[in-house]
Amino acid sequence: MTPPGAIPPYERDPEAIYRQSFDTIAAEADLSRLPADVRPLATRVIHACGMVDVIDDLEASPLAAASGRAALEAGAPILVDTQMVARGIMAHRVRRAPVICRLDDNRVPDLAEALQTTRSAAAVDLWVPILDDAVVAIGNAPTALFRLLELIADGAPRPALIIGIPVGFVGAVESKRALATLAPTFDIPFVTVHGRRGGSAMAAAAVNALAPAKTGSHEPTWP
Amino acid sequence: MTPPGAIPPYERDPEAIYRQSFDTIAAEADLSRLPADVRPLATRVIHACGMVDVIDDLEASPLAAASGRAALEAGAPILVDTQMVARGIMAHRVRRAPVICRLDDNRVPDLAEALQTTRSAAAVDLWVPILDDAVVAIGNAPTALFRLLELIADGAPRPALIIGIPVGFVGAVESKRALATLAPTFDIPFVTVHGRRGGSAMAAAAVNALAPAKTGSHEPTWP
Repeated sequence: MTPPGAIPPYERDPEAIYRQSFDTIAAEADLSRLPADVRPLATRVIHACGMVDVIDDLEASPLAAASGRAALEAGAPILVDTQMVARGIMAHRVRRAPVICRLDDNRVPDLAEALQTTRSAAAVDLWVPILDDAVVAIGNAPTALFRLLELIADGAPRPALIIGIPVGFVGAVESKRALATLAPTFDIPFVTVHGRRGGSAMAAAAVNALAPAKTGSHEPTWP
Repeated sequence: MTPPGAIPPYERDPEAIYRQSFDTIAAEADLSRLPADVRPLATRVIHACGMVDVIDDLEASPLAAASGRAALEAGAPILVDTQMVARGIMAHRVRRAPVICRLDDNRVPDLAEALQTTRSAAAVDLWVPILDDAVVAIGNAPTALFRLLELIADGAPRPALIIGIPVGFVGAVESKRALATLAPTFDIPFVTVHGRRGGSAMAAAAVNALAPAKTGSHEPTWP
């Protein structure tokens, strides 16, 4: 029993922390309704947000995991909407795949003005030359996801996978619904978390789940 | 009515997106139980995660908002546990306050080995020389928050505010409970979101809420 006012004992071993986290998720989350190759991704998304029930809102198309994994193994670029997503991606897991965020590109403000849209959406226009077979991870801006769908509808190259998990109260629900409706018509695999929930941590976790774990790292290969 | 397979119309104006988001939060969240000066922070934390009910878990000590605001205005350093938190902090809002993350410091791996703990916790030891009156924002690692409390219990300088919102299944609940129990005994203002929920976006949003909005930016001053 920890006396009042004292700091309780806590787990300090990184491997044990990972293992206990993943064990808790396995015990509490019913992953059985998901295809086997999506379960590691679901586990990492839950791990990133602390909410087991987020899998109730998770939707992944049948080829999502395989297509994303193959693209990352081939060193395809990972296109992200924010630096937060970029920083959540474990560099040692995606060594061969460059992580690219165009939000701070100096062309973005003028482009946003010209397109009468957000900077997040304008930055997506700068993805077009490198979109072919890329892995896209959107964790923040609904307008970025909407813009991506518009560009693809207009003939832009097809990414290998769209991870579309923007968050919030304006456009998040609708942009994710549009992704789930339209991506299959474009033959593009996708992953989303429906509803208002989402964010950079979940989007990055989905990428990390599809990337191969480094031998000898603290993280267990999962599952 | 949008035809099936078409991209629905969506809001593209950044100011309108902010306004509608904050209006939705104001309509759905009962902020009245919170002190007036904590409401903008609660609003931004909700905005960051898309979950109105997160305020049920929000706890802020009476001086938290005032102390954090004063520290940021004085240009106090903002000490963060991950680069994700750093990237979520709006640079233009905290111009005078440097954002510092020590996780990638090259002393950290050896220190973690010596202390038999995580790199996140070891990085906190490197905060000690700049901890006095700093603003701390922990959005990821429970071990970082536990370590900070240990160091302060052992006599380290007192920060102006601890924003402690780690996420997850191992230690998050316990470290936030320890923060809420111990910080008052150290006379340190704190903000937390109890339970497993948390994360870099919430921690960064709390910092952003306490920093002054830039005149002429897209963001309305809130409330």
